Amino acid sequence: ETRYFRQRLDHFSFSGEEEFFQQRYLVGRAGAGGWAGPGGPIFFYCGNEGDIAWFAANSGLVWDAAPRFAALVVFAEHRYYGESMPFGSKDKAYNNSRSMAYLTAEQALADYAVLLTDLKRNLSSESSPVVLFGGSYGGMLAAWMRLKYPHIAVGALASSAPILQFEDIVPDTIFYDLVSNDFKRESLSCFQTIKDSWKELDEQGNGQDGLLKLSKTLHLCQTLNTTGALSDWLNSAYSYLAMVDYPMPSEFLMPLPANPIKEVCRNIDKQPEGSSILERIYAGVNIYYNYTGTVDCFDLDDDPHGMGGWDWQACTEMVMPMSSSEGLSMFPPDEFDYALYADDCVKNFGVRPRPRWISTEFGGHNISSVLEKFGSNIIFFNGLLDPWSGGG
Amino acid sequence: ETRYFRQRLDHFSFSGEEEFFQQRYLVGRAGAGGWAGPGGPIFFYCGNEGDIAWFAANSGLVWDAAPRFAALVVFAEHRYYGESMPFGSKDKAYNNSRSMAYLTAEQALADYAVLLTDLKRNLSSESSPVVLFGGSYGGMLAAWMRLKYPHIAVGALASSAPILQFEDIVPDTIFYDLVSNDFKRESLSCFQTIKDSWKELDEQGNGQDGLLKLSKTLHLCQTLNTTGALSDWLNSAYSYLAMVDYPMPSEFLMPLPANPIKEVCRNIDKQPEGSSILERIYAGVNIYYNYTGTVDCFDLDDDPHGMGGWDWQACTEMVMPMSSSEGLSMFPPDEFDYALYADDCVKNFGVRPRPRWISTEFGGHNISSVLEKFGSNIIFFNGLLDPWSGGG
Repeated sequence: ETRYFRQRLDHFSFSGEEEFFQQRYLVGRAGAGGWAGPGGPIFFYCGNEGDIAWFAANSGLVWDAAPRFAALVVFAEHRYYGESMPFGSKDKAYNNSRSMAYLTAEQALADYAVLLTDLKRNLSSESSPVVLFGGSYGGMLAAWMRLKYPHIAVGALASSAPILQFEDIVPDTIFYDLVSNDFKRESLSCFQTIKDSWKELDEQGNGQDGLLKLSKTLHLCQTLNTTGALSDWLNSAYSYLAMVDYPMPSEFLMPLPANPIKEVCRNIDKQPEGSSILERIYAGVNIYYNYTGTVDCFDLDDDPHGMGGWDWQACTEMVMPMSSSEGLSMFPPDEFDYALYADDCVKNFGVRPRPRWISTEFGGHNISSVLEKFGSNIIFFNGLLDPWSGGG
Repeated sequence: ETRYFRQRLDHFSFSGEEEFFQQRYLVGRAGAGGWAGPGGPIFFYCGNEGDIAWFAANSGLVWDAAPRFAALVVFAEHRYYGESMPFGSKDKAYNNSRSMAYLTAEQALADYAVLLTDLKRNLSSESSPVVLFGGSYGGMLAAWMRLKYPHIAVGALASSAPILQFEDIVPDTIFYDLVSNDFKRESLSCFQTIKDSWKELDEQGNGQDGLLKLSKTLHLCQTLNTTGALSDWLNSAYSYLAMVDYPMPSEFLMPLPANPIKEVCRNIDKQPEGSSILERIYAGVNIYYNYTGTVDCFDLDDDPHGMGGWDWQACTEMVMPMSSSEGLSMFPPDEFDYALYADDCVKNFGVRPRPRWISTEFGGHNISSVLEKFGSNIIFFNGLLDPWSGGG
């Protein structure tokens, strides 16, 4: 059941000009038994950077567990995503830095706090224990909400939530090292082929008609202007594959077989003698971008999950330094350069990041001591193949 | 030692137009031994609605305790008070609702979090245990900061902090009932004289040359236009007397003798046979407003402690319903009328209050269960003569 809540745009100031927006949330009474009723538990999913219906459809654990607790299930959409757009439309919300100013984790948590308080009052269920759920960025929100609003939620299941992927709390190479490990563990030659492919790609790209040839070899719809776009496209295929390297078929990001990385590497390795590195690479990523076999050519600009807002968040609060190590990584060596990063943010969004704000507001440096002292009731659930587990 | 920190005006949004202000803070190395040095404890006073130097001069406990812990003492001034003015001056900061928009408890707590984080880094003292102190509104900030920033502070001493004086968490008559009790316990006739004085005051005020006579009887500098201003002036004398009814002489709000309410009542009671009620009232409040005997006449518009900003805060977040009961109170019976209250806020400040926001953001309804679950390490220190103890 889809509902909308009149939510305040800025919870933390009082300019007198009150701006509101419609926040979407989904309510489900899971199972035949339904909700236990007033006083019964509420499972609250902290929506993250995307359409909430998509997360609701891909969070089976919440739906599986709810009936056993006769819990009411609520999936709340994160402001500036899906249908929950300030200023009436995505175009207006994403117009400029002034309109995007209120796309922050703190404002989103306050949204959830106000929504839950109102929801419980309307259900005459103020005493309901609320358990928070969330994955990835939504998992961070679930953990942070339990810490910041202990009077509203009794616990949280924070799945794949890299709350330590900030500043120097964990090594900035850990993410790409873990992605690379997922490939290495399936096949050393697969790992090596990918590691060698970047140089190959640059050389071809710089050669006679190189970009045209590359575009043909990888079945791109448009001819490349630079090799950069192609590198990014391959990079995200490998990174997302590591995030969804499930032992069963899934359709979370893309329709994929069980153990997709094993399949990718099998395709890379099984190409006939004399196949070029890039032909092997194509055969590999084809598993990720075209498992259904219905795609004739690849459009590098596709963004199927409407995560444009995340770039803004990464340029304001969510500054997660990421480097690629010389030795362990299959990606081109790369040092995170904050100055460069910040300048790009100013150029692209007219905003300067605050790289230390998240750890100031939510903690992070030896957070375990804080979590122990408090009866924090947070389960940090991490799959070890998931590259986010490094910061989780 | 007075220092200034370049503080961000709005911690919770990213419009791209970054506005900063100079936040004042005082640093003291108490006692001969001084600070233990890096890793040593930091006592941090959460400044409230006034000049921080004034609070530093009137918080003896912090200074007394610091040497025994070799603690560094920091008194941080609250934004929009004392010298810590956004937009460069009090006139500009208090110009309108847009300039005052960022005078909130959440922004102030974020100021303290950022200041402490920066301070510890500069002192290479990240591991220092920070203990928060505060009284009244500052005590609420200390308690809320410990709850919201457990990674920054290990505990708090929240003195006379009425964190429950919101919505219907405590009876809205409790404050004036406690003030009245402080007078009743000293002298029933004193209590009765004050209780009878309001009717007397109104009748005189409405009589022939009434306001002129009243102004003479109470030695006011200007002739009254209404009796309302006089009632408010008397009301705040009684209320403040209850807040500072210390067993020793003090100069916190005003120069006062030990047990000031006992003295006030003694003066009210000891007036010669046939003295009018209002002559007795004058003799009483004279103790509060003129203990030094240097005041020739009283100016009702005096605001010695520059708390103008508090009216704004009371009209935005800090909505504390206060009524005066028919029976137990010595004040005129009065029902808190939220609609009226809100309309006045819109009229005076162009802003509408959010009466439920504080309990949503910080909790309040059965907060004890939250405090117990968390190792909250908060001492709520309340003097039972202090009328704020009802909400504390």
